[in-house]
Amino acid sequence: MQNCSLYLLKTILIFTELQINSMTEESDAKKLIAAATAARQHAYCRYSEFRVGAAVMTEDRTIIGGCNVENASFPVGICAERTAIVKAVSEGHKSIIACAVIGWSDVPQKVIPDTCLTPCGMCRQALKEFDKDMTIYCAAKDGSYETVTLAELLPRSFASKNLNV
Amino acid sequence: MQNCSLYLLKTILIFTELQINSMTEESDAKKLIAAATAARQHAYCRYSEFRVGAAVMTEDRTIIGGCNVENASFPVGICAERTAIVKAVSEGHKSIIACAVIGWSDVPQKVIPDTCLTPCGMCRQALKEFDKDMTIYCAAKDGSYETVTLAELLPRSFASKNLNV
Amino acid sequence: MQNCSLYLLKTILIFTELQINSMTEESDAKKLIAAATAARQHAYCRYSEFRVGAAVMTEDRTIIGGCNVENASFPVGICAERTAIVKAVSEGHKSIIACAVIGWSDVPQKVIPDTCLTPCGMCRQALKEFDKDMTIYCAAKDGSYETVTLAELLPRSFASKNLNV
Amino acid sequence: MQNCSLYLLKTILIFTELQINSMTEESDAKKLIAAATAARQHAYCRYSEFRVGAAVMTEDRTIIGGCNVENASFPVGICAERTAIVKAVSEGHKSIIACAVIGWSDVPQKVIPDTCLTPCGMCRQALKEFDKDMTIYCAAKDGSYETVTLAELLPRSFASKNLNV
Repeated sequence: MQNCSLYLLKTILIFTELQINSMTEESDAKKLIAAATAARQHAYCRYSEFRVGAAVMTEDRTIIGGCNVENASFPVGICAERTAIVKAVSEGHKSIIACAVIGWSDVPQKVIPDTCLTPCGMCRQALKEFDKDMTIYCAAKDGSYETVTLAELLPRSFASKNLNV
Repeated sequence: MQNCSLYLLKTILIFTELQINSMTEESDAKKLIAAATAARQHAYCRYSEFRVGAAVMTEDRTIIGGCNVENASFPVGICAERTAIVKAVSEGHKSIIACAVIGWSDVPQKVIPDTCLTPCGMCRQALKEFDKDMTIYCAAKDGSYETVTLAELLPRSFASKNLNV
Repeated sequence: MQNCSLYLLKTILIFTELQINSMTEESDAKKLIAAATAARQHAYCRYSEFRVGAAVMTEDRTIIGGCNVENASFPVGICAERTAIVKAVSEGHKSIIACAVIGWSDVPQKVIPDTCLTPCGMCRQALKEFDKDMTIYCAAKDGSYETVTLAELLPRSFASKNLNV
Repeated sequence: MQNCSLYLLKTILIFTELQINSMTEESDAKKLIAAATAARQHAYCRYSEFRVGAAVMTEDRTIIGGCNVENASFPVGICAERTAIVKAVSEGHKSIIACAVIGWSDVPQKVIPDTCLTPCGMCRQALKEFDKDMTIYCAAKDGSYETVTLAELLPRSFASKNLNV
């Protein structure tokens, strides 16, 4: 009888924890997407006209936003995710636990409203360097988003372990 | 009776095709890894001392090798896979069907013999632009290799479709 | 006689202005180098062990610091100057009037104390995009610095005008 | 009398050498610009529509061409000059003595016929790594070109000496 009660209690606790986790994650997603959307306004994207915002959450739950910053020499530009990463690192953070990205074109006829934006391969690699079981929220213009992990987006990653550094 | 024979014949044909495909793939892997290993010798890697070779196979089955070319300003360097890609494109190729990568450190104590090298995220993104159902052979120093697809290494990729270009 | 006095007054005014300009510039240099040195502490430079800090001054005289943020895949890293630039742009700034850069190795025997650090070509290109008659202060570990302009460091630059954008 | 003849002879020799040098340089420029123009045809530039060709001359006077190879994620693209550089290095060359660059938009109304194209800062940095008193021929669509040195285009450069490597 006692065992049964204990088991029931345990089940309730696990269920509650799962719910709390899920609520936290939903709340994180919303906060990060809001920060990414705010940062998006400052995007300097005169060459692609594709305006992107991103935000990272550091281990201590600080949220830092970034936008894409392009250059006449295209390879010199920096994507929104990497802007957010280097801002975080330059402010003393070393671990990132979540990242949101949102973006659509300034040109109305090029907007695809319900397509969730994912980080490019270069940004996945940049995120990997500071990865702490990172969750990525890929948002669309219409507010919808998909939740993935960095491990899913960059499987079998190349990292410092390969350099033995 | 006739049906049965036809079925048997069909099965044999499929089986043979699978075998041929598998042999071709094995042969492709070997050729590409050999080309990557040859290209590796020319790597200019004085900063990382991590010597990498790569080779791509274009749609018409031409094999083109490349190596990493580093720079004192690290972000200006170019990985082996991307050297191979831009060589191929600058010679008129537009579709890549396979790629091999192999690399290990010039510093003996940093060599990890049996670790298959995978492309970094930036190179996965570069390969994506010319992707034709691409197979990637990730090789280790000891000659072993793993076969993956670019779709597996860069799921939910960001690509030209996102820009509506 | 009056003319002569006027002339004298004018000369004094010009001289004073020049002195003030020179003092402002000296003061700017010191503030920017201090900000660059502070940002340098957060550099993530485990691969090069070359720790760099930079700071930019925007048109409204806001000072924003940055550091280098490296990656296991070297080309994915971002230099200190570009970290400072993207931070500034992501906070709404669009014109940069001055930049300081300072850096030396974490490895004592690799330090060259009195060598002024200059931005790499990639960072010069990145600075160009937001150039407002930019002055660059290239600092050495020992506190000395050289003053140059971006126009001197990147003559005949490639820029948006070439793309007709 | 004898002295005078010797002096005259010497003057003639110097003059001839200068003429030969000048003719060689002119001939080099033409060959390199032709190679750059040929390579330009293969440019993959669907995002900028700015089609660029480049060619480098190695120490043993081999000429190798390259074109720009862009990517949906703009920073992942590679400029024409760097394509030529990595091709050269991957074929065993380590010193570059000259480089030509030519380019204009695929969009007729964006073409600026008589503007000589110069390498971007990132390419200047990439060229620096293999610099052997490099001459750069900056060509315009109309066939005219300007001759500069890499030392002029990237003064006070950041290079391996700064890393003490």
